[in-house]
Amino acid sequence: MAAPPIPIVGGTGALGFGLALRWASAGAAVVIGSRRAESAEEAAQRLRDAVPGAVVEGVENAEAVTRGDIVVLSVPFRAQSENLTNLKGTLRAGQVLVDATVPLAAAVSGKATRLLGVPQGSAGEQAQEMAPEGVQVVSALHTVSAAKLAELDRTLDEDVLVAGDHAESKGRVAELIRLIPGLRPVDAGKLEAARLIEGITPLLISINARHRARAGIRIAGLEEPKW
Amino acid sequence: MAAPPIPIVGGTGALGFGLALRWASAGAAVVIGSRRAESAEEAAQRLRDAVPGAVVEGVENAEAVTRGDIVVLSVPFRAQSENLTNLKGTLRAGQVLVDATVPLAAAVSGKATRLLGVPQGSAGEQAQEMAPEGVQVVSALHTVSAAKLAELDRTLDEDVLVAGDHAESKGRVAELIRLIPGLRPVDAGKLEAARLIEGITPLLISINARHRARAGIRIAGLEEPKW
Repeated sequence: MAAPPIPIVGGTGALGFGLALRWASAGAAVVIGSRRAESAEEAAQRLRDAVPGAVVEGVENAEAVTRGDIVVLSVPFRAQSENLTNLKGTLRAGQVLVDATVPLAAAVSGKATRLLGVPQGSAGEQAQEMAPEGVQVVSALHTVSAAKLAELDRTLDEDVLVAGDHAESKGRVAELIRLIPGLRPVDAGKLEAARLIEGITPLLISINARHRARAGIRIAGLEEPKW
Repeated sequence: MAAPPIPIVGGTGALGFGLALRWASAGAAVVIGSRRAESAEEAAQRLRDAVPGAVVEGVENAEAVTRGDIVVLSVPFRAQSENLTNLKGTLRAGQVLVDATVPLAAAVSGKATRLLGVPQGSAGEQAQEMAPEGVQVVSALHTVSAAKLAELDRTLDEDVLVAGDHAESKGRVAELIRLIPGLRPVDAGKLEAARLIEGITPLLISINARHRARAGIRIAGLEEPKW
């Protein structure tokens, strides 16, 4: 039986589309979600052009999340809350929500090298608070460069820190991450670690600006994790 | 002319002593500071035993900081403020203070996988506020495992994120870091980035506990920095 498709809320954005490209290249089916069905379908067509044979469709976010068990939320922080409100009626118990949101100060016209304080502690914890009961949030995929994902001939070689309160959900998300060659999932603990992980992104933005790079993160001296 | 020695406030602690060992092994002169002169001298003797020919002395913290231009502050967060108060009369304008303090919740009997909120934003910014005028704080050396430093036959291979408001001071600290083989300094921006960098340590503590490792951090995909 084929694995269910991976719905990506905000799949027309740079990170969401980059992930869709990589997953489709790895043979996974993806569903690109967007606020407008036409934008989603347009992105799906771009993906088909880039990855011959890709199994992809583009639909509205609310429709997209019904198509798979593990839903990726990849939207700017300023739109995270609104998206979660809109999805309250469609996300269902038993689903896993992968939150990749980073509360950069850029969300309020500040610098992308600064992190906002989030009342719940982090964007990941906000997602858990706002998600319907029974939906388990896993925080991940904050530090991979969207631009690097989009260059399909570029080899990736970095880690993805994964945080969540439920080991099984984290393990399932780790499997999705491992589908993308060159990405290694690393278990970084409970969901509350999201506030520390989210802080690495503005650091990388600062480092990348200084060094004209698209660097990611690597946990040095860690043998292949148990996943 | 020989380079001035490197004073290490809290040089009898695990991180401070590990750094002293590595710098002494690299041929640098070090001054181990401690609250008690006897403890400092005892640590200096241990270092001489471990590194034949090491140029090292052990003295009280207040004496130690007078011996060099770049002073390393390596104390637990719960003692950082007291140490800085004690050093107000001895630190002098023109010196660089390398702050390696991490405000772990363990300082208040909490978990070492959690970060405390610091009124100034970070331990590094607290150090800058408390240091005498003209002393420039550079935040660095939070993520290197003390245990790994102490195993002199173990090869290091990781990055050290360096933050500070003064490029020249940062550059001088980067030079000290590069003295230790296997450590690469990476410019991570202004001192305010310390709040993000300090958060990586509790993350690593969590990852290390889960994976029985002593991992550090690496900026992946960053060519040799300009330093």
